[in-house]
Amino acid sequence: MESPLPLAETRQLPVVGSERPERRDAALNRETLLRAAHELIEELGVQEVTMDAVAQRAGVGKGTLFRRFGSRGGLMAGVLDRSERHWQEAVIGGPPPLGPGAPPLERLLAFGESRMLLNLRHFELIAAAASPGARAFGAMSFTTMHVRYLLGELGVTGDLPYLATALVAPLDIVVLREQVDKADIPVERLRAGWADLVTRVAARP
Amino acid sequence: MESPLPLAETRQLPVVGSERPERRDAALNRETLLRAAHELIEELGVQEVTMDAVAQRAGVGKGTLFRRFGSRGGLMAGVLDRSERHWQEAVIGGPPPLGPGAPPLERLLAFGESRMLLNLRHFELIAAAASPGARAFGAMSFTTMHVRYLLGELGVTGDLPYLATALVAPLDIVVLREQVDKADIPVERLRAGWADLVTRVAARP
Repeated sequence: MESPLPLAETRQLPVVGSERPERRDAALNRETLLRAAHELIEELGVQEVTMDAVAQRAGVGKGTLFRRFGSRGGLMAGVLDRSERHWQEAVIGGPPPLGPGAPPLERLLAFGESRMLLNLRHFELIAAAASPGARAFGAMSFTTMHVRYLLGELGVTGDLPYLATALVAPLDIVVLREQVDKADIPVERLRAGWADLVTRVAARP
Repeated sequence: MESPLPLAETRQLPVVGSERPERRDAALNRETLLRAAHELIEELGVQEVTMDAVAQRAGVGKGTLFRRFGSRGGLMAGVLDRSERHWQEAVIGGPPPLGPGAPPLERLLAFGESRMLLNLRHFELIAAAASPGARAFGAMSFTTMHVRYLLGELGVTGDLPYLATALVAPLDIVVLREQVDKADIPVERLRAGWADLVTRVAARP
């Protein structure tokens, strides 16, 4: 039997984009830069945010920003990973119903809605980020694993890995953008539709 | 009330990639070239098929091939559209259970399996074809409309357009390739998993 991992390492395991531990001041510096970029994105939208503006907001030179992230795509990837990490932390240990403590069906419905909204918010960021494919894959892996876990908690029987993948597939960003931007479907209808789908899958025969 | 369309036009409506009518000899010439390309792809795989080899197999000069399709990507797009069109014709008017005549659940399960296999076969062709995004979208639109129709035939109630999109999402090529190539899941298990999903969605409460 393997000995358990120390808590700090255990908590890093399921989180996308976690890196090898940095020295504390370097990590703080990085967080300062990412928070500045995040704030500007919230204020202006991804496309309007320049490296100059982020450097100015963070109170550093532009050279520092490029040394830390390599490129605008690297910075956007950092912002995306940070947002994804915060969301995953909320799922793993935040307040219910997204976090632990609510009944599993309630948790699953909150999770789907939350992932849907996160994916819609992340769309432009993903397009601007370096290695978008790998990042989207990492995020969907976590999402699928969590849905599988909650299906188990719900007592659903069958091929749970398949069912989890199938329930996560309509939350894909490409599918959502098609529905929201091209077909003008309100997000509330998507939320209700996904909830209906999950309820059917989870129903006891 | 609108008068019905002539049969020939009606049948073209739902078919992806249909073009404005060509003169008969031009169409025959095009079909000869596409069939030659299709045969070579079946024999050698997409990546090994050159414009030279297709021209030689069809018994025409390479210039003719480029004039007709513009580029290798254009030719591959033509082969893809032809394959998609044949499949859609089989769904609309071919033998049951894919075509009309079988009970709706049987038809839906045959349809999902058939679309799954077609998507897996089309993967390399899509990567090689011009305008792959638009083509994939067209194919998925037909697929979603047909699933919606069969859910109606099954007496399923609820947001049928949403449920159809959700059932089609796990048949997406990216999802399938992840399952088959990276996670080594046998196609038979995917077929069974999708059938289970559909059966749950279609179950009467």
